[in-house]
Amino acid sequence: MYGYPESVAKLIKEFRKLPGIGEKTAERLVLHLLKTPENEAVKLAAAIAGLKKNTKMCKKCFALTDQDICKICSSEKRDKKTICVVERPADMASIEKSSSYSGLYHILQGALSPMDGIGPDEIRLKELFKRVPEEKINEVIIATGTSVEGEATASFIAENLKKIFSHLKISRIASGIPMGGDLKYFDQVTLKRAMEKRYDFK
Amino acid sequence: MYGYPESVAKLIKEFRKLPGIGEKTAERLVLHLLKTPENEAVKLAAAIAGLKKNTKMCKKCFALTDQDICKICSSEKRDKKTICVVERPADMASIEKSSSYSGLYHILQGALSPMDGIGPDEIRLKELFKRVPEEKINEVIIATGTSVEGEATASFIAENLKKIFSHLKISRIASGIPMGGDLKYFDQVTLKRAMEKRYDFK
Repeated sequence: MYGYPESVAKLIKEFRKLPGIGEKTAERLVLHLLKTPENEAVKLAAAIAGLKKNTKMCKKCFALTDQDICKICSSEKRDKKTICVVERPADMASIEKSSSYSGLYHILQGALSPMDGIGPDEIRLKELFKRVPEEKINEVIIATGTSVEGEATASFIAENLKKIFSHLKISRIASGIPMGGDLKYFDQVTLKRAMEKRYDFK
Repeated sequence: MYGYPESVAKLIKEFRKLPGIGEKTAERLVLHLLKTPENEAVKLAAAIAGLKKNTKMCKKCFALTDQDICKICSSEKRDKKTICVVERPADMASIEKSSSYSGLYHILQGALSPMDGIGPDEIRLKELFKRVPEEKINEVIIATGTSVEGEATASFIAENLKKIFSHLKISRIASGIPMGGDLKYFDQVTLKRAMEKRYDFK
């Protein structure tokens, strides 16, 4: 490939499979790696190889973890009576970055989307409904995205939780996030405001 | 880090060391890798680990190769009487992509830059001057960049080759590349034109 040896061409090809990495960027990354000390490349290779092997889902909240139970679920410092429901691990990371929340999480691993065949059984909803009584939760903050699917998921969760647990406080993160948005792309100030201004779900 | 486990945080950190990869991009790459089949991640890790181990410099032209002598130097199909002199492996790859040249290369591994302490002995110039008589070269095409260093390197090579080998044809890739540019960033049409319009060095 363009006069590059197999070892270089192969890595360019592998980098190009990653999202947002085109041919020029892949080439630049590989030529950069060739210039760095050998142990830097080894560290990167080891981190990639270790990623899948060492990363699993928390058995309680379905966050990414390298233990059975994630750091947040097993931390002494978190408020164990509040659960914040998000769609994806990246959403949870965004909220953690804003340091506006100190409770537990529940990562649904998606949002309801009947068009794509994703109903209540395809995401981690049952597990959420089990956690509320088991962990004697006082408040559920619904922080799914403001896309159509995120809003529908929020309504579904709120309505069903209300029905079963009449004394539970159910809230939705505040506006401040424009409609149609995906949580992980917003800045920390916006997320912080949205978390502080959460309102009761009617 | 932001509620991510060690295995995820470590790879985000390693990706961020690469040029042009910020925190958001690193996060996106890692979350993408988590979603891909395990063997894709393994292939990427292996390609990175193999890069340094299997990549060396061609003993003749100093291109990147996984053999002692690179594919172009050992190819039967190339014109063995012409050498194209470039600064970097990426420059050679750009010319190969334009398919406007079928001779040999000589990769200097840099350009003369007295300010940075890079004189004729720090780049592969001596080796070029040895190759010309040894391989009975008819033409040397100087395709260093059009930056100050590239132009100075071109003049230096042309003047010194002229002095020693009076019958050698020495040419410079044509204008078409704006001044101050770096070869590897130009499109293939521009490079093709520059290669076709090369002129004798006075």
